[in-house]
Amino acid sequence: MRSVAGVDIGGTKISAGLVAENGTLGRVVTVPTPASQGPAAVLAAVAGAVRELDGDVVAAGIGSAGVIDPVGGVVRSATDALPGWGGTDLRGGLRELLGVPVAVDNDVHAHALGEAWTGAAAGRRTVLLVAVGTGVGGSLLIDGRVHHGARAAAGHAGHVPSAAAAGLPCTCGGAGHVEVVSSGPALLAEYLRRGGAAGTHHLAQVAAAAEAGDRLAADVLAGGAHALGQAVGGLANVLDPDVVLVGGGVSQCGDAWWHPLLAAVESELLPPLRGLPVLPGTLGQSAAMIGAARLGWAVAA
Amino acid sequence: MRSVAGVDIGGTKISAGLVAENGTLGRVVTVPTPASQGPAAVLAAVAGAVRELDGDVVAAGIGSAGVIDPVGGVVRSATDALPGWGGTDLRGGLRELLGVPVAVDNDVHAHALGEAWTGAAAGRRTVLLVAVGTGVGGSLLIDGRVHHGARAAAGHAGHVPSAAAAGLPCTCGGAGHVEVVSSGPALLAEYLRRGGAAGTHHLAQVAAAAEAGDRLAADVLAGGAHALGQAVGGLANVLDPDVVLVGGGVSQCGDAWWHPLLAAVESELLPPLRGLPVLPGTLGQSAAMIGAARLGWAVAA
Repeated sequence: MRSVAGVDIGGTKISAGLVAENGTLGRVVTVPTPASQGPAAVLAAVAGAVRELDGDVVAAGIGSAGVIDPVGGVVRSATDALPGWGGTDLRGGLRELLGVPVAVDNDVHAHALGEAWTGAAAGRRTVLLVAVGTGVGGSLLIDGRVHHGARAAAGHAGHVPSAAAAGLPCTCGGAGHVEVVSSGPALLAEYLRRGGAAGTHHLAQVAAAAEAGDRLAADVLAGGAHALGQAVGGLANVLDPDVVLVGGGVSQCGDAWWHPLLAAVESELLPPLRGLPVLPGTLGQSAAMIGAARLGWAVAA
Repeated sequence: MRSVAGVDIGGTKISAGLVAENGTLGRVVTVPTPASQGPAAVLAAVAGAVRELDGDVVAAGIGSAGVIDPVGGVVRSATDALPGWGGTDLRGGLRELLGVPVAVDNDVHAHALGEAWTGAAAGRRTVLLVAVGTGVGGSLLIDGRVHHGARAAAGHAGHVPSAAAAGLPCTCGGAGHVEVVSSGPALLAEYLRRGGAAGTHHLAQVAAAAEAGDRLAADVLAGGAHALGQAVGGLANVLDPDVVLVGGGVSQCGDAWWHPLLAAVESELLPPLRGLPVLPGTLGQSAAMIGAARLGWAVAA
C-alpha cells in the first residue's frame, strides 16, 4: 500500500512511521538522534529509519525541532539540542537521500496538524495547541493550515507575560514569560525549592506524589497550571479558536494539573468564548509523525 | 466616478465617506449616532449619511462597533453604547435602505483593513493592530484578511493577562487584563489617584502635562505603555506579524507614551522578532471608513 513516511526529529530521538492516505499510522521505527555528529549524520539517520520502514513510500513529511522555513525547506535556527542544525537544507538533503518528494515543518506545527487530522481536533478549523514539556511551545492552525508568521517564528505560546513570572529570567533572554513558571523543569525545581521530597528527579514523581495526597506537590502543579491557563485564556481571547489542545509531558500530570488549568482558562475568557473546549491530544507521541505525514501527502506524486 | 460608501458606526457618531477603487477617500459626512432611539434609527441615520454623500455609490462597506458576523451580516452582540444593537440585521437592513450590495464587519477589523490597504501597513500580509482608547481592542490580519475566529470574537488584545493588572477587575467581568491599566480612562484615573492636577478631565491634558515636564504625568503614561507593550510583545511572539500597528486616542499621547511602549515591546520579543516594526497608523479617524470600503469594493457589482 502506498504510504508516506512521517518523521519526527527531536534532539534525542528520531521517529519515522508509515502513514496511510487516511491518516492511519502503521509501522514505526525509532532511532537515537546522532545530534553531536552534526546535520549530515542526522539526515542519514532519518533516511536510514525511513528505509527501515520498508514500505511503498511515495513521499516524506518531516517535523523537526527548530525554526523551520516550510517554503524554502531549510532550518532557520535551532537550539543547542541539535548543534549546527540551523542552515541545514532539510528538504533538499532528504529528497536526495530518499528519492521522493519531501515536505518539512516545525515539529510542534506537525503535532498540531496531526491532532487536527485524526486526533482530538479532527475537523476543527482554528486550533491553538500548547505543548508543555521542557519548554512551552505552541502552534496555531487557521482554517486548518499552520500559521507560520512573517519569519516562520509563530507559535511561541510560552513567551507571553505572566504575573507569576514577573521579573524572572526566561530561557529566551527575556523575562517574565509563562514558560518560566510552567515548564516541566520549572515545576520540578519549584517542588524541590519548597522542600519537596529529596530524591525527586522527575516530574512524574511530583505528579504521583500529588495523586497520593502530597499537598505541596499538588500546590506546585496547580501554580504552574494556573499561570499557564491564564496565558492560554488570554491568547484565546485574541484568537477565538474552535478548540485549545494541550499536550507535552507536563500534560500527563493528571487532575492535580488539569483541574486548575481548566479553571484558569475559563476564568480568563470573554463571555462569547466561555465553554471553549480545552482538551488533551489523543495521538500522544505519534501526533507529530502523523501531522508531518499529512504534509508529505500534500506533495506526494 | 464609481465609489463605495465606507461607513464607520460608533456609539456617538457615524462617519460615511466616498472611497474610490484605489482607496482614495473623497467627501465625508459625519452625523451623531441616534443610539438611544434603537437599531432602526441607527440604520436610517447610516442610510441618510450615505445618501448625503451624493456619489455614484455602487456598494457600501460597514465597520460597526460590536461583535459582527461578517458571513451572516448580523450584529452578534454589542455593548450598552448601542442599546439593542445585538441581533440587528446590519447587512440586510442597509441593503434594503440603500439598494446596493453591502458588506459588514467589526470597526476595529475595518480599521486594520484600512491601514493595510493605503495606510501604515500597506502591502503587509500579517498585521496585528492594537487600538487603545476607552478600551483596548485589536485585530489580526493574516495574509491580508481579517482573522475572525470561530465565534467572530477574535482580536480582543486588551483581554490578556498583565502583571501590572493582577487581581484588578476588568470591564469584561474577568480580572487582571491589560486593558485595566492601559486604557485611556485607566490612565486618567491613575493620574488623579496619585495626586495629579485637579481639574484634569481628559487624557490629552495628562499628555500635555507630561510634555511640559510633569513627572507624575510621564510616569503614569509610561506605566500604561509599559504594560501594554509587554502584552503586545507577547502576542507578537505567538503571531509573528510583519508589523504591529498601534492606534486609538491613547496613541496620541506623544513620546512620553510611545518610548516606553516601544521599549517594552522590544524587550519582550524572541530573538527572531527583534526589530519588529511597531508603528502608528497613518489614516487616523478615516481608517475604519477606508477599510470598510475595501470590503464594499469586494461585493460591488
